[in-house]
Parts: sequence; C-alpha cells; structure tokens
Amino acid sequence: MDKQLIYKQITEFWMNSIPFNQELGIRITRFDSEESEIRFDWQDKLIGNPLQKILHGGVTASALDFTGGMVAAANIIDQLDDMSPQMIQSSLGKLGTIDLRTDFLRPGRGEEFIVTAKVIRSGSKVAVTRMEMHNEQGQHLAFGTGTYMVG
Amino acid sequence: MDKQLIYKQITEFWMNSIPFNQELGIRITRFDSEESEIRFDWQDKLIGNPLQKILHGGVTASALDFTGGMVAAANIIDQLDDMSPQMIQSSLGKLGTIDLRTDFLRPGRGEEFIVTAKVIRSGSKVAVTRMEMHNEQGQHLAFGTGTYMVG
Amino acid sequence: MDKQLIYKQITEFWMNSIPFNQELGIRITRFDSEESEIRFDWQDKLIGNPLQKILHGGVTASALDFTGGMVAAANIIDQLDDMSPQMIQSSLGKLGTIDLRTDFLRPGRGEEFIVTAKVIRSGSKVAVTRMEMHNEQGQHLAFGTGTYMVG
Amino acid sequence: MDKQLIYKQITEFWMNSIPFNQELGIRITRFDSEESEIRFDWQDKLIGNPLQKILHGGVTASALDFTGGMVAAANIIDQLDDMSPQMIQSSLGKLGTIDLRTDFLRPGRGEEFIVTAKVIRSGSKVAVTRMEMHNEQGQHLAFGTGTYMVG
Repeated sequence: MDKQLIYKQITEFWMNSIPFNQELGIRITRFDSEESEIRFDWQDKLIGNPLQKILHGGVTASALDFTGGMVAAANIIDQLDDMSPQMIQSSLGKLGTIDLRTDFLRPGRGEEFIVTAKVIRSGSKVAVTRMEMHNEQGQHLAFGTGTYMVG
Repeated sequence: MDKQLIYKQITEFWMNSIPFNQELGIRITRFDSEESEIRFDWQDKLIGNPLQKILHGGVTASALDFTGGMVAAANIIDQLDDMSPQMIQSSLGKLGTIDLRTDFLRPGRGEEFIVTAKVIRSGSKVAVTRMEMHNEQGQHLAFGTGTYMVG
Repeated sequence: MDKQLIYKQITEFWMNSIPFNQELGIRITRFDSEESEIRFDWQDKLIGNPLQKILHGGVTASALDFTGGMVAAANIIDQLDDMSPQMIQSSLGKLGTIDLRTDFLRPGRGEEFIVTAKVIRSGSKVAVTRMEMHNEQGQHLAFGTGTYMVG
Repeated sequence: MDKQLIYKQITEFWMNSIPFNQELGIRITRFDSEESEIRFDWQDKLIGNPLQKILHGGVTASALDFTGGMVAAANIIDQLDDMSPQMIQSSLGKLGTIDLRTDFLRPGRGEEFIVTAKVIRSGSKVAVTRMEMHNEQGQHLAFGTGTYMVG
C-alpha cells in the first residue's frame, strides 16, 4: 500500500477513535516522521486555573505526549519492510510512553495551540522525542521530552 | 480562621471550580501538607488507546500534576503567619508547575484511580513533590516528580 | 555457576575497571536485584562550588546513574536462564542509560555519601529505577529516576 | 565595571577554582546570556564502560549541568542594575540546580566534546535551560534540560 495513504488512514483513525483526544479537540495537522504536528482550540472546559483562565497543565502534557507518540509512530512505520495493515497494527500496538518530561514556560493562554514533535533518538526498541507548544501568536508555552517504547 | 476550615474551603473551591478536573471526575480525598490524595473513576472518555482500553497518558499526567500542586499548596498555607483569605488567595496565586516528570509503569487499567503526593523539597520559592498512582487493586501504575513555583 | 559468586565477580570487575568510578571513589556495598547500594567519601576534588564546599551536581548525577544501572543489571541477571560468563557479558553489554532525572534536595555536604537504587519498572527491554542519596548523617540530598535499556 | 570584563573574570574564576571541572578538563569557550559553551577532551579516566571505551554517563550529566548553570548565571548578571563585585558574588551565590534531565542519544565517543546551553525560561527566581552535547565530528551525543534557582 502507498505510504501516504497509510498515513492518511492512521491519521483518520487517531482523530476519530481516541476519546480523550476528542475531548481535547485535537486535530492532526501533520503526521510525518520528520516532524508531526497537532492543533487544538481553547475551550473553557480545559481550564486548570479559574482565577487566571489558563490551561490545566495536564492538557499541555496530554498534547505533548500524543504528539511525541505520533512522530515516534511515523518513524516505526517508515522502518517497516512490510507495510501491510496487520504489520502496521502490530507495530503500533507496541507503542507506549515510558516517561515524559514537561517544562511549562509561560501560562497556557491563547485561542489556538500548536504542538510539534521531532525524534531525537531513534532505535528499534526505544525512541526519544522533543516537543514544543506555541499559541497562535507564536508564544512558546511549553517544551517536552518523551521516551517511548517502539518495538 | 481555623486551619481545618480553611483547608475545607479550598478543597471545595478546587472540586467545584476547576473545569478540567471536573472533566476528569477528580475528587479530593485528602488535602494535607504531609500527604495529599485524589481519586477518580474510569470513564470511557478518558481512553487514550482504543484497542486496549487504557487511560490516555495525559490523564495520568494531569492527575499527578494536580495532586503534586495540592500538597505544595498545603505546604505554602502551613507556612503562612497570616491565614486571612486575602493572604491565602495571594499565596495560592503564585503556585505554578515549573516542570513535571511522569513515569508510566503499567497500562492505565482499573475502575478507580488513586493518586498520592508528598513534598520532598520545601522552600520559600520552589517545592519539589513526588506522586504515585495506583488503581483500586493496588497496582502501581505511575510515578511522578514535579517542581512547583510556590513564592 | 553460583549466583552469589557471579554477583561477587561483577562487583569486583566494576570496582576495579571503571576509571571514572575510581576517580569518584565509588565502593559497591550492595549488589542485589531488590536494592543496590554504593558509597563514596568526600574528596576535595569533587567540589563544584568552591565558596560553599559542596559536591558538584555532576558527582551526584554520576553516583545516581551508576547505582540505578547496577540494580537494573542485577535484574537482568536474575532473569537469565543461562548464567554462563558469555551470556552475562552479552546481557550486560546491552545495558545503557536512556535518560536520567536528578532532583537536588539539599546542598551536597557530608563525609560519606550513600546511594541506593530500586527497580520500579522491570521489562525485557527497558527498566526504570529510583535512586536516593543520603549523607552519613541521614540527610536526604538527592533523588533520581533513571530509564535504562536492558535488552 | 564593564560587562565584558566582568564576564572574563567570572570565566577565569570558574576555570581555575572548581576542582571537579578541572578533573573533567572543562574549558569555558563562550560565556554569554544568549548561549554559553564549554569544551573538554577525551581522557581515559572519564571512561564509564571499559569494554566499549565510552564516557561515563555522569561525565555527560556533569558537563550539561555546569553549562546550563553558566548560561543561567549570565542571565542573572545581565538583569542586574548594579554590577559591583559584591552584588555579582551575592547573586551567583543564589544559583543552584533544582533538577536536571539528561537524555543520552548516542554512546559518548570522541576526541573533543562540545556542550552548548540556552535559557528557555527566564524569571527572577527560576530559570530553565536546554543543553546539547556533540563531539568534534558533529555527532549529537546528549540533550539536557535543567531547572535552576536564580534568585
């Protein structure tokens, strides 16, 4: 099967089938092994600090974790010899977060939030990724580092 | 004002006024400077992996972050000379997560999740806390370490 | 070969053959899959802050990293069916630190430093460990969390 | 006093007065609030894995910790109104590492190691920095994230 088509199907599956991502309103805007990206809009239900109207830190961590997992997944798929649906499903089934560090740089304010992720260590068993979250004004809100089981 | 009464009011405020905690169904079951605890029940909307029916890693990170912040807050309040509502509100307004590490030990399965937090470094400006998440069967699901601005 | 004898040989190898551990003066005082422990004495060459005469943060990180690796190694060996020297050497050759978090709780002052480590996640590919450093007076100086490749 | 002269004096003090940095052979090659850099050469005494002749992970953590602290220090000094020696010494006396995450990307092999650091969160009390370590061939060996007390 064609790689772009596979990526498109995985993107659709992830956008429609992960309940908590749907709660957060996460849209996958780039799914690629070089860099992956998601976006989500401000919603009042995501508030963590009612006095200051800022995102709950866990929303930020959730978005960083998912985006890091996405780019790790794209790297798994890129390394497969056999891109059959069974092989892809089996490979993605091994994906899991081992640990995640989130650095909160500025209060989570904005109308739209953009999270990008890159792989900094790619192996057959473990991948390490770096993530960044900005708002629509380009303010850098958070950094993340994630370690994922990939094989 | 009496410390237990103050703690009770803050607990009620946090349980009723933080939208994202309400989404997660977080109940504060112990608010204390020695150890704080929250609990939340399984909900399908918290699923992160639809194939395996396990919690989204971000749900775990959210719960750890909030519980660590709670125990840090209890330590701030304990150190206040003046426990007036104005002083407490001003002190808690300075609370913010600087960084958070989440270690995922086992897949997030269970009917109820219990998160506890203790302070391991307590200062006038920064507090560091350790958190643990178990399920109702006592399985240890996650560890966390958080660094919080407290002054 | 007898497990205790194997452990003794590995301990001796590590104490005599790792140049940087010898610089730090590290003594292995317990090598066990339940909990491992090392100790080292104050030396002026380990100073990181000359005004305050405290350990360099890197000394603390070095000691935590090694002790976490030790307890991860003991877990690898415990899970081997075949404890031949070749198998052990091959298994330990796969050991490597993926990431390490160090939390500095108090300035590194003391005459002797004791570091202990336990495994909190044990798998066939990755192990996660928690470490603590105290001084001879029982003051808790640092916490650590390490993720290790083990297979 | 002139800022460049102050920076030069601090650089010399750090290169000549921190025993553990001298053990590691650390040379400060750039001390600046935008980006700071250190370098050190391979030495057999820095070996952590005798079978593979690679750096001890603690050497990497030590170098990342110090470089992050340097760039945090440069930011403290840049924000001072009064650059008297007393003020500078008092300000730098408050500097301390709160926590440090080290991500090991590749085995620590090389003839020379170059570590750079930038500030990603700058505040009056806490600074967060990101560090990278490469060898003389440009291979990326490690990433770091450090949280420092600065006020």
